[in-house]
Amino acid sequence: MKSDQISKGADRRVVIIGGGFGGLHAAQGLANTTAKVTLYDRRNYHLFQPLLYQVATAELEPNNIAFPIRKILNKQKNCDVALGEVTSIDLNGKKITVNGGEVFYDYLIMATGARQSYFGHDEYRDCAPGLKSVDDALEIRRRVLLAFEEAEWEKDAAARQAKLTFVIVGGGPTGMELAGAIMELASKTLPTDFHNIDTRCARVILIQGADRLVPGMPEDLARRAQRVLEKSGVEIRLNTLVTEVTVDGVSVGEERIAAENIFWAAGVQGQAVSGTMGVELDRASRVMVGPDMALADHPEVFVIGDAAAAVDAITGKSIPGVAQGAIQAGDYVARIIAGEIKGKNSVPRPAFQYRDKGSMAMVGRGNAIAAIGKTHLGGFIGWLTWNFVHAMFLIGFGNKLIVVFEWFWNYVRHTRQSRLITGDPKVHIKELRCNK
Amino acid sequence: MKSDQISKGADRRVVIIGGGFGGLHAAQGLANTTAKVTLYDRRNYHLFQPLLYQVATAELEPNNIAFPIRKILNKQKNCDVALGEVTSIDLNGKKITVNGGEVFYDYLIMATGARQSYFGHDEYRDCAPGLKSVDDALEIRRRVLLAFEEAEWEKDAAARQAKLTFVIVGGGPTGMELAGAIMELASKTLPTDFHNIDTRCARVILIQGADRLVPGMPEDLARRAQRVLEKSGVEIRLNTLVTEVTVDGVSVGEERIAAENIFWAAGVQGQAVSGTMGVELDRASRVMVGPDMALADHPEVFVIGDAAAAVDAITGKSIPGVAQGAIQAGDYVARIIAGEIKGKNSVPRPAFQYRDKGSMAMVGRGNAIAAIGKTHLGGFIGWLTWNFVHAMFLIGFGNKLIVVFEWFWNYVRHTRQSRLITGDPKVHIKELRCNK
Repeated sequence: MKSDQISKGADRRVVIIGGGFGGLHAAQGLANTTAKVTLYDRRNYHLFQPLLYQVATAELEPNNIAFPIRKILNKQKNCDVALGEVTSIDLNGKKITVNGGEVFYDYLIMATGARQSYFGHDEYRDCAPGLKSVDDALEIRRRVLLAFEEAEWEKDAAARQAKLTFVIVGGGPTGMELAGAIMELASKTLPTDFHNIDTRCARVILIQGADRLVPGMPEDLARRAQRVLEKSGVEIRLNTLVTEVTVDGVSVGEERIAAENIFWAAGVQGQAVSGTMGVELDRASRVMVGPDMALADHPEVFVIGDAAAAVDAITGKSIPGVAQGAIQAGDYVARIIAGEIKGKNSVPRPAFQYRDKGSMAMVGRGNAIAAIGKTHLGGFIGWLTWNFVHAMFLIGFGNKLIVVFEWFWNYVRHTRQSRLITGDPKVHIKELRCNK
Repeated sequence: MKSDQISKGADRRVVIIGGGFGGLHAAQGLANTTAKVTLYDRRNYHLFQPLLYQVATAELEPNNIAFPIRKILNKQKNCDVALGEVTSIDLNGKKITVNGGEVFYDYLIMATGARQSYFGHDEYRDCAPGLKSVDDALEIRRRVLLAFEEAEWEKDAAARQAKLTFVIVGGGPTGMELAGAIMELASKTLPTDFHNIDTRCARVILIQGADRLVPGMPEDLARRAQRVLEKSGVEIRLNTLVTEVTVDGVSVGEERIAAENIFWAAGVQGQAVSGTMGVELDRASRVMVGPDMALADHPEVFVIGDAAAAVDAITGKSIPGVAQGAIQAGDYVARIIAGEIKGKNSVPRPAFQYRDKGSMAMVGRGNAIAAIGKTHLGGFIGWLTWNFVHAMFLIGFGNKLIVVFEWFWNYVRHTRQSRLITGDPKVHIKELRCNK
């Protein structure tokens, strides 16, 4: 333990990279300290990722689930916010490179989150966008809505069906939620809007490598979700690996599925900047950290949330890449740093302990699964729980009322408020075509 | 008068280009006829343009002011909606080219609206985006918000001031509303969010060629609006022409104004497709039409709204390019066509008469001007009138409640719900820089 490396006293410069749940909680946890905190993010907003799939399926607008980081932290005098991308980290020089300039730190908190992983097949990216950012969500929304617009005027039956076939790769919460929402869009929201096609003929295929959906959740709930999705018409392929992805379809083993809409929710990996530190990364390029969420040789550098490969020292379980994991780790490292700045640091540092507050996922209209401790909820009760918990998260985001109103409105009206194809659809159609 | 050219009877194919106010009203006016109507638009949504500046200034989201055309027309059995750009019109062949294919018509209604005009200086477009589309609005929003983000970390005082200088070219309603809203953003919404800069130091300069603002509105209201804007800090330059626009400033006569944020609200012109008909256009490339809103030699082709250069046959006044002009013309041509399909057409056709329902414009927070007949309103009363009238327009758009809620929330809280920089800010900053 070399925390004596860290020069003590006031005015410690704490640099936080990332304004997600982890970064924000770390910043807020340092509010009443003498630390000079600067939080860097390439976006000017905090994104509530669990609801991103609802932006992708035209249920919510970006501003319903994103909030300016400045606004969240504007009352915190000892914390500055900067828009910019951190391109490299120099551990020995204790500095980062951001927007071409260098910034020195006494403490560094990496909360850079995760990006989509194509497991070495980055060429899939254009054909099968992921769902990690607002722009990803708007791109998926654009493709979904354009698919029906193009199908409406496609004379050839096979080509029409390909336009109306949606393949989601990955059966975790995101993939499951996306599949359910697209099926609802096709079967409930759009039918009356199209005169030449029956949007209910759309196929939604959810491909999962494992033998069950949402492996992170209890088995009984996963089975329950599967039944609900299959009842709604979603085709679920378990134990199935995608062997090829092109702009007009996917291959699973011998079978070829003609589909013009392919979305990727199969895996995540750390950000590229993690690779610039010259430290050990796991297979998902997450940074390996000790029980104090810090680097073994650099106790002044913490990595939290999706960016870290961390294990709970007590339970020995790896800490899941969910909001709670980042939030709790953010609070934890803030406490550690606050203590050490005051000179009250205990050596060795107390180990981080993850407290599982449960998990939940939306399955379909008025239907969700939730595991809270030993309690397993599903169906409408699960849906109410899901809405309640997610709406509560948005407290202080000011737009909670609007989100709840839109959920309610969409639920009773089978409608969607945000069915706008932005960007240039004309160009986009061309792209799709010329890629073939 | 050659309306005998038009083959009568049922199943007349009516093609409408454009889903704005004019096109929608024309389509709805033909609901109870035997006509087979197809409405083409390159967007899948109807846009409520009067509120576009509020999207640009982060007050509203696109879905608050845009609504899917399919949704609006989905109950109308005799009307199909198609997404696509019409690239040419063949008057003698009675056909249009859309998405590379040809479509024949018996009646054509051009409601293609207007685009920004740079008066022959299209090279200004990149430096000074206009405000005609959702994407324009999001681009302006991105630039406005990025300006403050960059200024926060700009060490050089002059460079910082250039980033905090906003020039709006054009003193019509849009330019005036944009200037007022940006000034409010800088002076009321953002100050607490930035620690290194005082956002109230931002300069907002409104440049108008004429000797007064909003020439389309009564003079006393224009003067009143000018006083309010100047009191709020907006610098207004009347009788001023911009002689050069670059990415880092504008020239007005001898004077050079260093400004990284330049927005264009100075003029409009017809769409390019108008030029493919081989008929007479005015200087703003609008199509010259007769008192029946049709082409002299092609009575089966109507041009309405901003796309037309039309004169009220009774008053001799030209019909203004506002929502009411398009709405009333759309209703009118639908009546004419409906009558002729039934064989009840009168020759010559009755002339279109424009009924002025008044005009209004937002000046600033809780302040607007409105001229309704002889009644001239301003200040808070004008603002209430403005909100009431514009909210009423959104009836049936389902999101009226949300819009009103957001207006109210923003008004009482001095806040903005939609301060998201989407797209890739990093790339955008680079663009800005390398353009210099």
